[in-house]
Amino acid sequence: MEPVLSNPQSDRVKKVRALHRRSSRQRAGLFLAEGPQAVRELLRFRPETAQTVYAVADADAELVELAAGRGVPVREVTDAVMTAMCEAQHPQGIAAVARPVDVPLQDALAGDGYVVVLTNVRDPGNAGTVIRGADAAGARCVLVSDASVDIYNPKVVRSTVGSLWHLPVSLGGSVEEIFAACRSAGLRLLATDGIGTQLLPDTDLATPHAWVMGNEAWGLEPEVRDACDEVVRVPIYGHAESLNLAMAATVCMYASAAAAHPKSR
Amino acid sequence: MEPVLSNPQSDRVKKVRALHRRSSRQRAGLFLAEGPQAVRELLRFRPETAQTVYAVADADAELVELAAGRGVPVREVTDAVMTAMCEAQHPQGIAAVARPVDVPLQDALAGDGYVVVLTNVRDPGNAGTVIRGADAAGARCVLVSDASVDIYNPKVVRSTVGSLWHLPVSLGGSVEEIFAACRSAGLRLLATDGIGTQLLPDTDLATPHAWVMGNEAWGLEPEVRDACDEVVRVPIYGHAESLNLAMAATVCMYASAAAAHPKSR
Repeated sequence: MEPVLSNPQSDRVKKVRALHRRSSRQRAGLFLAEGPQAVRELLRFRPETAQTVYAVADADAELVELAAGRGVPVREVTDAVMTAMCEAQHPQGIAAVARPVDVPLQDALAGDGYVVVLTNVRDPGNAGTVIRGADAAGARCVLVSDASVDIYNPKVVRSTVGSLWHLPVSLGGSVEEIFAACRSAGLRLLATDGIGTQLLPDTDLATPHAWVMGNEAWGLEPEVRDACDEVVRVPIYGHAESLNLAMAATVCMYASAAAAHPKSR
Repeated sequence: MEPVLSNPQSDRVKKVRALHRRSSRQRAGLFLAEGPQAVRELLRFRPETAQTVYAVADADAELVELAAGRGVPVREVTDAVMTAMCEAQHPQGIAAVARPVDVPLQDALAGDGYVVVLTNVRDPGNAGTVIRGADAAGARCVLVSDASVDIYNPKVVRSTVGSLWHLPVSLGGSVEEIFAACRSAGLRLLATDGIGTQLLPDTDLATPHAWVMGNEAWGLEPEVRDACDEVVRVPIYGHAESLNLAMAATVCMYASAAAAHPKSR
């Protein structure tokens, strides 16, 4: 058995910690998944992409077993090393270094159901929450434009709570490229925007479509909105000015899910 | 005109800052609303509860005018004083000290539409986001049990983005008292819980009901769940284990809104 990693200053620990930065992730072709939920879903859904699992002595034994069962090396580390490796302020005793799982645009679009497009989403928590919501609401895939936050940012990975490994995610490509691919796939492009005149309940969600989400602060850029087929607004029944991005996205995605599954499945 | 407040160490500034703490809020009978959106909605909807608006020299002039027009004293402060007063790391140049706006349980329950009950919600951001969502989705009111986070916590106030002043909110009272009042008002109690066997699309939302939300981490306490009439689960169509509290609440509330407004209004 390999010795416990105990030196937070070691090169190995520094290399893992460097994965907090986009440039290091791209150079290494690796990223960091922190916490039991992320590690579990990585090991359950895409074990072949896991490089190493790092775990403290009293980490979830089931997870350590799962890693061993999938042939993923597990290395024991001290609490100090775990803290040094992780971006989370309170790492939960387990983390994994893994290879990216994004797929080319065309591969992501293969399949059925509605599609989710993120353009210019910059906040890691929002991006991760929308990916989680897309997974929960049964989206075909999530397409992330090149101007958006890097989904391998540890904060994004954490906030997907494992959904990153559950559904196809495609990264990069300009909005124009993504839109062209969606149209070729026969999808109507539905912009979600508070200034839309078409209300969500009046929108046809029974035919193939893609939800296009914009930046959390300034919404969709006018040229992106204009390139869509319909501009859809989630109705506001009270006095609130708006919903935040994750909430609006969740309402839209669940409306699509409801159209696809009219009653309980 | 009164002099600009420029000493971050002054008693007045310390008194405002003390409102970050629940005990000081309760002693003073006041709380702090930070940022233009909160101050605007306070002044638009409940100006009689505003005590003082504090604004930096280049604060939104329209807001300062609005305050003056509603007879609310405006006091100019330096950037350093604004930073010292506010809980937000980047205060946006304006804040107000105001009196609480919560109403007694019975008053909150007067009116039509579905009701939202928060039991044991502890995270300020979640509580605020659910109040914002309840406003957007046209809930009758939000009832907050005594074991939940204080909604006058600056983080909650900020994350309601003004909705705190838009719909009746009732604070305190045990879950038992709240449930009894809901039943007297003719409401069915619908627990939202990932372990529910009844799916949201199969739930009757056409008759009066209250959504009961639990803690973000551990869900509803068993005895609270058992006291409800139905335990409802938001369907998960993909592989996600769950939705977070704010997302699940938003989906449930918008389902209620859709039942009340079958097509565009």
